[in-house]
Amino acid sequence: MFGDCDNAQIVFYPNYFQWFDRATQNMFNDVGLPWSKMWPDYNIAGVPLVDAQATFMSPLRMEDEIIIDSWVDDWSGKVGTIRHNIRKGDVVHVKGTEKRVWAAKAPDTAKGIRAELMPEEIRNLLTGK
Amino acid sequence: MFGDCDNAQIVFYPNYFQWFDRATQNMFNDVGLPWSKMWPDYNIAGVPLVDAQATFMSPLRMEDEIIIDSWVDDWSGKVGTIRHNIRKGDVVHVKGTEKRVWAAKAPDTAKGIRAELMPEEIRNLLTGK
Amino acid sequence: MFGDCDNAQIVFYPNYFQWFDRATQNMFNDVGLPWSKMWPDYNIAGVPLVDAQATFMSPLRMEDEIIIDSWVDDWSGKVGTIRHNIRKGDVVHVKGTEKRVWAAKAPDTAKGIRAELMPEEIRNLLTGK
Amino acid sequence: MFGDCDNAQIVFYPNYFQWFDRATQNMFNDVGLPWSKMWPDYNIAGVPLVDAQATFMSPLRMEDEIIIDSWVDDWSGKVGTIRHNIRKGDVVHVKGTEKRVWAAKAPDTAKGIRAELMPEEIRNLLTGK
Repeated sequence: MFGDCDNAQIVFYPNYFQWFDRATQNMFNDVGLPWSKMWPDYNIAGVPLVDAQATFMSPLRMEDEIIIDSWVDDWSGKVGTIRHNIRKGDVVHVKGTEKRVWAAKAPDTAKGIRAELMPEEIRNLLTGK
Repeated sequence: MFGDCDNAQIVFYPNYFQWFDRATQNMFNDVGLPWSKMWPDYNIAGVPLVDAQATFMSPLRMEDEIIIDSWVDDWSGKVGTIRHNIRKGDVVHVKGTEKRVWAAKAPDTAKGIRAELMPEEIRNLLTGK
Repeated sequence: MFGDCDNAQIVFYPNYFQWFDRATQNMFNDVGLPWSKMWPDYNIAGVPLVDAQATFMSPLRMEDEIIIDSWVDDWSGKVGTIRHNIRKGDVVHVKGTEKRVWAAKAPDTAKGIRAELMPEEIRNLLTGK
Repeated sequence: MFGDCDNAQIVFYPNYFQWFDRATQNMFNDVGLPWSKMWPDYNIAGVPLVDAQATFMSPLRMEDEIIIDSWVDDWSGKVGTIRHNIRKGDVVHVKGTEKRVWAAKAPDTAKGIRAELMPEEIRNLLTGK
C-alpha cells in the first residue's frame, strides 16, 4: 500500500519484518492456536525472536501484489526456525528467517522468561505431522 | 516509548530495524552527507539494503534508555556492512547488521538500479580515515 | 494482529489512521483508479490530507475481526470528506473522517501543490453516480 | 527521517499521531510521572484516547527539523484536551488535539475501564499550577 513505501518509493525494509511477524502469527492461527488462547493455556510469555534475517533480492513498490509463503523449517530444539518467502507471481523478492523460542514464564529470572522445548503436539501441528 | 511496544509489552522487533535505518541515516548526516543532497549530487537512488540481520539477546521495555552505536565495518566492495549495537548502559541487548549497496540509477535495467563501488571520499568520511 | 497493539494491549491509536489511509486507497482501487496510474494521468501530486479526525468509542484488541466501511461523504468543493466506520460485527468501535484535496502539481508555489476541484468523472465514480 | 516519509515523499500522516502520542507521554515524564509507575500507583489502565484530530497546513519532508509544542488545554472534567503544534522554526505545519480519559480499571464492565476525574495533584503538575 501507499503507506508501506518510504522516501525512495519502495517498501520500507522494516515493514518486511512486520509482515514476517504477521505471517508467523497467521501460521499459528491457521492450525487453531490463536496466541490469545495459546499463551495462557501453556503459561508462556510468547514466542519471541532471538534472531531475524532477511535477504532483499529485488525491491517491491506500491500496488505490487505479493504472496508470503511461510513454514516451520525446524523447531526440534529450543530455538525454532521459521522461513518466509515473499514473492510476486513466481519471483521471490525477499527471503526471511525468524528464530524464535518457546518462552515459558520465569518470574524468578532476570529476563522473566526461559526458553523451553515447544510441546510436541504444537510442533506436530505446525509442521503438518 | 509506549507505542514502540507490542502486545507482549516489549519492543516490537521490526522497530529495531527502523532504528537501524535511522542510525545509518544519522551516520551520513553526521559526516555532512544528508541524503537529500547526497543522492542527487551523486546521481544515486539511495543506499538500499540487500541483507539485514539482528540478534536479540534480551528484550527492551517502555522507558528503557538505550544508546545505539553504529559503524561502517567494511564498504570496500560493492556491498557495505554496517553494524549496530543497541545497549542499555554497558549491556548490549540487540546486535544488528545491515548490508547495503551504493545504488546508481540505471533506468535501462529491470530493477532500475545498479550496485557500484562507493566513491572513495565518502567511504573515507564514513570510516573516519 | 499482535504487532498492531501497544503497551496497553489494545490497538495503538495511530494505526487506525494508517487503516483509514489504506481504506481510502482501496476505494480508488475499487473503482479502477489505482494511484500509480491516476496521479500521472491527471498530473497530480496525490490526494493529501488537510484534516483527519477519529472518535474512539471502544478499544479493539488482538484477534478482533473488524470491517472498515468507507465512503465519500462529499467532494463537491475543493476539500473532500471521506468517512470510515470500523466495526466488529454490527458494533462501531471507531469513526473516522479524512478531509483531502485534489493536489495539482504547482512547482511555482511554496508548497509545490495547489488544491483544485476533483474532475467530475472521478467524483462520480467514487460516489457511485 | 527517511522512513517517516511515504510514497509521495512527505511525512506519512499517521506518523503525526504517533508523534503526538510520544509528546503526551513525554509531558508526563517531564513532570515526574512515568507511565510505568503512574499506572500501577493510581490503579489505572492508562490515559486512552476518545478523540484525536489534526489539521495539516503544510507538508513536512525528510530532514525538516521540527519542534512539537504540547500542553494540557483543559482536564477539569472527565475528558482532557491536549494540544500539539508541530512547527519548523516559527511556522506551524500541523496542529493536533488529543482527547483522553483517566481510565480507572473496571473489570466488572464491558470495556474493562471507566473514565474518572484525573486526580487534582496530577492535573496541577500537568498544567503547571
